[in-house]
Amino acid sequence: MSAAPTPSADIVYLNPEPRYSDAAIHGPTVYLAGQVPTDPQADMATQTRQVLEQIDALLLRAGSHRGRILMAQCIVRDIADVPAMNAVWEAWFAGVTAPPRATFQAPLVNPAWRIEVIVTAARTVP
Amino acid sequence: MSAAPTPSADIVYLNPEPRYSDAAIHGPTVYLAGQVPTDPQADMATQTRQVLEQIDALLLRAGSHRGRILMAQCIVRDIADVPAMNAVWEAWFAGVTAPPRATFQAPLVNPAWRIEVIVTAARTVP
Amino acid sequence: MSAAPTPSADIVYLNPEPRYSDAAIHGPTVYLAGQVPTDPQADMATQTRQVLEQIDALLLRAGSHRGRILMAQCIVRDIADVPAMNAVWEAWFAGVTAPPRATFQAPLVNPAWRIEVIVTAARTVP
Repeated sequence: MSAAPTPSADIVYLNPEPRYSDAAIHGPTVYLAGQVPTDPQADMATQTRQVLEQIDALLLRAGSHRGRILMAQCIVRDIADVPAMNAVWEAWFAGVTAPPRATFQAPLVNPAWRIEVIVTAARTVP
Repeated sequence: MSAAPTPSADIVYLNPEPRYSDAAIHGPTVYLAGQVPTDPQADMATQTRQVLEQIDALLLRAGSHRGRILMAQCIVRDIADVPAMNAVWEAWFAGVTAPPRATFQAPLVNPAWRIEVIVTAARTVP
Repeated sequence: MSAAPTPSADIVYLNPEPRYSDAAIHGPTVYLAGQVPTDPQADMATQTRQVLEQIDALLLRAGSHRGRILMAQCIVRDIADVPAMNAVWEAWFAGVTAPPRATFQAPLVNPAWRIEVIVTAARTVP
C-alpha cells in the first residue's frame, strides 16, 4: 500500500490487502484470516473441503501444516451442517492430531457461505 | 490415532480424538478447546461452574492455572444469561486477576448448552 | 483486588477489574479484551471509530500499535453494517498493513452495541 511509518520486520503478512491480510507470521506462531469457501453455491461438505484446502495452502506458505494447528474456531451458518463438516474435518486430520476446536452458529458476511474457519498454528521448528 | 508423517514433538495435545483435542501446549502458551457443560439440563450458574471446573482441570494438566489466563471468549446461548454467568465468573477469579474477555450470543452445537468458553493461557514459568 | 496466591510477574494485565482486564501482555504478545463503543447511540461508522480509538490507546500502553496487529475478530450486530465498518477499517489501516480478520454476526451484551472487536497484537521489539 504505502510506506509504513514503523516497518514491522519481525511480522510477515501474507497477501496484504487494504482490508485484511491472509496470514500473519510472528515468531513461532501463524495467525490465519477466517477462511471461507471459494464456491458459495456448493454444499456443506464441499464448502468445508474448500476452506480446508485454503488453510493447507496458507499454512504451507507460512512454514506450517495441518498437523501443527494450535486452535480452530468453526463458525457455521447452520448448526445442522455440523455433521457434514465433521465428516470432512475428521478425514482431513487422519494421520495427524486434530487440534482444540470451538464451534458455534453465526451469519457470515456472504449469506451463501456456510462456514468460516479461524486457525492459529505453530511454524515448523527450523 | 495413526502414525503422524511429521511428528510434532514441540506441541503437546491433551486427549487427542479424531475430531479434536482438549488442549494444545506450544512453548509458553496453552490453547484450550471450547469448554461446554457436562450437564446440559442445569441452569446457567451450574453450567458456568461446570465449564470453569473443566478449564481448571485442563489448565492444571497443561502447567497453568486460572490466574494465568490471557484471553477468554464466552459464547452464550442467550445474552439474558450473562448476569448469572458473571456472578460465577467473578467469584471464580477472586484472588487472581480476571483476564481480557469478549462475550457474544450464538447457538451452540448442542442446543441445551447455555455456554461455551474458549481460553488461551500462559504456562507457569519453569 | 486481593492478594494473588501465585503472582504472575511475567504477565501484565491492564486495568484489572473483578470481571475482566482490558489487556494481557505476555512475552511478545498482547491480548485485548473485546472492545465496544463508548456511545452506543452512535451510527456504525462512529461506533467503529470509537472501538478503533480504544484499540489504539490500549496497544500504545501495551507497547504495540495498529501496524502490529496479528489477528482481529469483528463481531457485528448486523451484517448489513459491514460496509460502513469496512470504510472506517480501511482508512484506519492506511499506511500500515491490515491484519488477518474474521467477521461474523452475533448479538452483543448491550443490545445497542453494533460492533465488538477482538485483537491480538505483537509488542514492539525492544
